[in-house]
Amino acid sequence: MIKYPNGKKISGALETSPHSTSNRGMELESEINRSNEYYLSSKMAVIHKKPTPIQIVKVDYPKRSAVKITEAYFRQASTTDYNGVYRGRYIDFEAKESKNKTCFPLKLVHPHQIRHLKEVLYHGGIGFFIIRWTSLEETYLVPAEKMIHFYQIAMRSSIPYQWFIENALLIQGNYVNPVDYLKVVDQLYFEKR
Amino acid sequence: MIKYPNGKKISGALETSPHSTSNRGMELESEINRSNEYYLSSKMAVIHKKPTPIQIVKVDYPKRSAVKITEAYFRQASTTDYNGVYRGRYIDFEAKESKNKTCFPLKLVHPHQIRHLKEVLYHGGIGFFIIRWTSLEETYLVPAEKMIHFYQIAMRSSIPYQWFIENALLIQGNYVNPVDYLKVVDQLYFEKR
Repeated sequence: MIKYPNGKKISGALETSPHSTSNRGMELESEINRSNEYYLSSKMAVIHKKPTPIQIVKVDYPKRSAVKITEAYFRQASTTDYNGVYRGRYIDFEAKESKNKTCFPLKLVHPHQIRHLKEVLYHGGIGFFIIRWTSLEETYLVPAEKMIHFYQIAMRSSIPYQWFIENALLIQGNYVNPVDYLKVVDQLYFEKR
Repeated sequence: MIKYPNGKKISGALETSPHSTSNRGMELESEINRSNEYYLSSKMAVIHKKPTPIQIVKVDYPKRSAVKITEAYFRQASTTDYNGVYRGRYIDFEAKESKNKTCFPLKLVHPHQIRHLKEVLYHGGIGFFIIRWTSLEETYLVPAEKMIHFYQIAMRSSIPYQWFIENALLIQGNYVNPVDYLKVVDQLYFEKR
C-alpha cells in the first residue's frame, strides 16, 4: 500500500477530470466518500453522505420506464452532509474546501450547520468540520466546539491559517483511505490523554 | 394537550388530503417527521429523515433564477430513511406501513435495509423498524435484531400479526407527538429491566 504520510492529496488515476471546472469543490467530497467506503468495508464505521435535498415539482410516467423527474430544484439542507456511527458514538460532520492561502472564509459555513452541530453536541454526539486548504494541500479536522466558538465570537469574516495550526488537527491519508479522519477522531475523542 | 393514548392515528386538521391516493403510504412518514420536529424543538433528540436519493441527468441555468433540474430519476437508497442521536446513542430506523390485516409482507423490507441495520448494530448503534398496520391503526417498534432474525430464518414471505404481539412494542402518540417512538426506545434500550 502506498502511503502519503504528509496528508497531501493524490492526483491522477482515480480523478475523473482534475482540470474540469465542474469538478471544482467535489474532490474532497469524493475522497471522503472513498474513505467512508473503506471504513464500511473494513468494518470500522458506518458513515454515509446524505443525499442532496431536492424539491420535486413535476414528474413524468413514461410507459414501461422508470418515473422521470422533469422539473426539480435544489433545496437548502437543514443539517450537515455526513453522519453515522463509530465505536458506538454518533458522528456528524460537514466538509468544506477553500482555495484561499491565508484564511478560511466563514461564509462557507452556514448558520444551519452551526445550529445543527450545536444540537448534536448537546445530545452527546461527536461533531466536527473537515476543512481542506486546496492551495496548501492540507486537510484539517476542526472540532465543532472550536468552530462554533470562533463563529460566535469572531469579529471577522474569516479564520486565519494560524488558528488552524493551534486549534485543528491535520488529517493524513493514503491511496485506499484518502482522508483518514477517524484516526484524528480516535486521538481527540477516544484516547485518554 | 389532547392525548390519544390508544396509539390510534389522528385524522382531520393536519392531514392535507386524507382521501387522496397520492397521500397513500405517506401518512406515517409525515407523522414521524412531526414527532422528530417535536423531539428537536423540545431538545430531546436530533433525528432527521434523509432526503430521497436522486440521480440528476440534466440541469438548466435560466437567467437570474435558481438552477433548474430538467431530467432526474429516483435512485435506490443504500441505507435506511432516518438517523440521528438520542441520549448520546446513534439511532437508525426505517418506517413501513401495510394495509394487510393479518400479516406484514416481508417484501416491504429491502435487503439493503437489513444489511445496513446489521452494520449499525455491529458498531453499537440502536436500530429498529417502525411498522404501521394501517387497517388496525396500530404502530409498532420492531428491534432490528428481531427483524433481522426473522428475515434470515423465515421460510415464509410475511410476518404474522401474532409475531408483532410477541416481539414488538406498541407505539403511542398524541397530537403534538403522533409517533412517540422514543418512549419505547427508552423502555427497550435505556431502562434497567
